[in-house]
Amino acid sequence: MTIPTLTAFARSPDGGRGLARDMRVRWALEEVGQPYDVRLVSFAEMKAPAHRALHPFGQIPTYQDDELALFESGAIVLHLAQSRPGLLPDASAAPAARARAIAWMFAALNTIEPPILERANAVLLERDRPWHAERLPLVDARVRVRLGELADHLRQGAGWLDGDFSAADLLMVTVLRRLGSSGLLDEFPALPAYIARGEARPAYQRAFEAQRAVFTAADATAPAGARTTPPPKTA
Amino acid sequence: MTIPTLTAFARSPDGGRGLARDMRVRWALEEVGQPYDVRLVSFAEMKAPAHRALHPFGQIPTYQDDELALFESGAIVLHLAQSRPGLLPDASAAPAARARAIAWMFAALNTIEPPILERANAVLLERDRPWHAERLPLVDARVRVRLGELADHLRQGAGWLDGDFSAADLLMVTVLRRLGSSGLLDEFPALPAYIARGEARPAYQRAFEAQRAVFTAADATAPAGARTTPPPKTA
Repeated sequence: MTIPTLTAFARSPDGGRGLARDMRVRWALEEVGQPYDVRLVSFAEMKAPAHRALHPFGQIPTYQDDELALFESGAIVLHLAQSRPGLLPDASAAPAARARAIAWMFAALNTIEPPILERANAVLLERDRPWHAERLPLVDARVRVRLGELADHLRQGAGWLDGDFSAADLLMVTVLRRLGSSGLLDEFPALPAYIARGEARPAYQRAFEAQRAVFTAADATAPAGARTTPPPKTA
Repeated sequence: MTIPTLTAFARSPDGGRGLARDMRVRWALEEVGQPYDVRLVSFAEMKAPAHRALHPFGQIPTYQDDELALFESGAIVLHLAQSRPGLLPDASAAPAARARAIAWMFAALNTIEPPILERANAVLLERDRPWHAERLPLVDARVRVRLGELADHLRQGAGWLDGDFSAADLLMVTVLRRLGSSGLLDEFPALPAYIARGEARPAYQRAFEAQRAVFTAADATAPAGARTTPPPKTA
């Protein structure tokens, strides 16, 4: 059996900060100890028919192995978690705990991520619109409601969303990291602490370095004026 | 074993149009032939500690049976689909088809629903803001990109997202129905046709009538001035 292949951005739009959705899948693969290949795609390739045959919405990541072609980062992480030990409670010994961990996967992607995506749209797509300054606080307020509820929940637990670290924590940490530069996370100290616990995992660090290496290599071959390497992030 | 219990809005904010997320779970329960009870909660109860113990984000639906308490409509539908036949390809006979159907469940909730939620926020929460008229076309354009891609995909298939009707179609139809009054769906004729195929299923119709009966009963007991029964929808 050949090892699975992911797709990822040939040129990272976030400067190697690991905010693209391939990071979720890389992290999951590292957690379960599954080696993988990466095929890099340009923005133009991502929207072309060959890639859309793998991903109808023209995005990354995709996942392919001998038996299966998948899209949607949440689905790929769930597939890895259901087919290999390490990311969900055992199906036979703890079916209820497993179902609850999967519920938290959906909470990360369908309750927490939508207002964060709305905020990203405001900042990335509407920054130059006349309403931006007045509207952003409204959007922030919607994000804050969910962050507060999540922080309340985390304070009642033992460090992770429901029992041990699971695929739900992996998704939730990657969703929350998109707020890194907003200042919102710092209003809820349980959240930066939670993210730091995720980032401290060796599997996270291997995945982060792997995606960062793609950015660094692409940037080194770019014309000098196009280089965007940020200064190394301090801890 | 007692039958499972859902929670749903005591007073439907959509006038019985079946747009609340209990509809997804009711439909899934009807598809797999699982009887269920419903416990109605007020908005105040939904945000109180007793309900938050079931749903950390203070929403409906929740699901409880003898073994399990769940939240997140997507997770509840997936749990029903994985534990009972009828909503996913067979795990042993067609594991790849099953994984692809689950990928489409995530696509419904994490690719298609977020821009639709952003539009709902614009219409429900920002209608009186000075930017509303100028901004709505930008939000509509983001929704339109995804609807166009989805319509392209559906035109290549045989009526459903991937093979036979599955839990993915159930979620996708309920997600798209939230655009009912926007006019956007009619720009992509494959989409109203797809929604109509979903709504024609007997299980959908039973679920729809059950949620509508809650609204009708609540409205009949409301003070006359508070009644909101819309005229019966024509077909």
